[in-house]
Amino acid sequence: MSTDLPDVSALSIGIVGGTGDQGKGLARRFALAGHTVLIGSRSAERAEAAARELDVEVRGAENAVVAAEADVVIVAVPWEGHKATLEALREPLAGKIVVDCVNPLGFDAKGAYPLPVAEGSAAQQAQAVLPDSKVVAAFHHVSAVLLLDPKVERIELDVLVLGDDRAATDTVQALAARIPGVRGLYGGRLRNAGQIEAFTANLISINRRYKAHAGLRITDV
Amino acid sequence: MSTDLPDVSALSIGIVGGTGDQGKGLARRFALAGHTVLIGSRSAERAEAAARELDVEVRGAENAVVAAEADVVIVAVPWEGHKATLEALREPLAGKIVVDCVNPLGFDAKGAYPLPVAEGSAAQQAQAVLPDSKVVAAFHHVSAVLLLDPKVERIELDVLVLGDDRAATDTVQALAARIPGVRGLYGGRLRNAGQIEAFTANLISINRRYKAHAGLRITDV
Repeated sequence: MSTDLPDVSALSIGIVGGTGDQGKGLARRFALAGHTVLIGSRSAERAEAAARELDVEVRGAENAVVAAEADVVIVAVPWEGHKATLEALREPLAGKIVVDCVNPLGFDAKGAYPLPVAEGSAAQQAQAVLPDSKVVAAFHHVSAVLLLDPKVERIELDVLVLGDDRAATDTVQALAARIPGVRGLYGGRLRNAGQIEAFTANLISINRRYKAHAGLRITDV
Repeated sequence: MSTDLPDVSALSIGIVGGTGDQGKGLARRFALAGHTVLIGSRSAERAEAAARELDVEVRGAENAVVAAEADVVIVAVPWEGHKATLEALREPLAGKIVVDCVNPLGFDAKGAYPLPVAEGSAAQQAQAVLPDSKVVAAFHHVSAVLLLDPKVERIELDVLVLGDDRAATDTVQALAARIPGVRGLYGGRLRNAGQIEAFTANLISINRRYKAHAGLRITDV
């Protein structure tokens, strides 16, 4: 594979909806890699509390402050609040790379299953709501348990990075690779994000059957 | 992972729509593994011609003969002919394990993308058309190029096996493992097959970007 990706070591990273496990886990790993990281929440107090819970230096602030200050913004909100959260952040997110890692899933007695999304995927919904941002889909399949575990030094998996802007996907591929063990691989255009989000339901089934924290590797790349 | 899968070495395998590259490639690998293999086509002549093209011993016959004679039947027809082909084979396929590996994809200048399927996926359509068969979804991501290449002895990837009948998915997992290098892993219920089929579009994007024959490995299993 090509390793000709940009140097992203100086980028600050904001995480909107950063008080959930996925957001906190990504915040932790990017802070460990040396990035300035801002965790966002609707409430500054909750964001600050989440930041204090981590074993690394990250700042907590309101989502709008995080969206305005960070160079790259990761969206890690629950699917239920996805559209409304992004609509409220359209202005501060304009011109920025917005990384959507949201999986629209339902759960019942038989496990997880994908929810229908009118726009095709959470990432496409984000792009529709944020026409002046460069939306990239990534980090759907990284286990929050592993991200948060201080005993886990390397996370051996590939992060699939999808988007329609080459510079933006290159940047996010390089960011993924800041986590030891992770490769960031281009995974297609935004119109092919829906099945990547939905694939998380399969990983949940696999985790249940094999008592694992399953991830993906792409072979022959 | 559990290795407690059934012994499938005596099962004969039929491939409906076996004259395409995916069907021929799977036929070749199962014949190499010692299975009796029947390649099917609407025309017995075309099936026999496809069988003769291979470097292994397989038989060609009409789809209906293949469906009636084989223990396990793999469906490898183009998406366009999927529903009609299966409707015509409902009786001979009754009571059998039917393995669907069909990917409903469209192609345009920007590459491949998933087609909408009323039933949710090709596999769910198959189950709707074949209520008396045990439909399993598998073998979506195995490169036909690799399957057919006599220089490739091992294919290092995981075949995700989806279905609602445990004995049937166990059988197909064991069949997948008959190809050297391949693991057959349970990947969820049939309602989660759509994203596995659609994921083939992402693999096509990955192949294009990285000049690869990409496949999947599941980590931590």
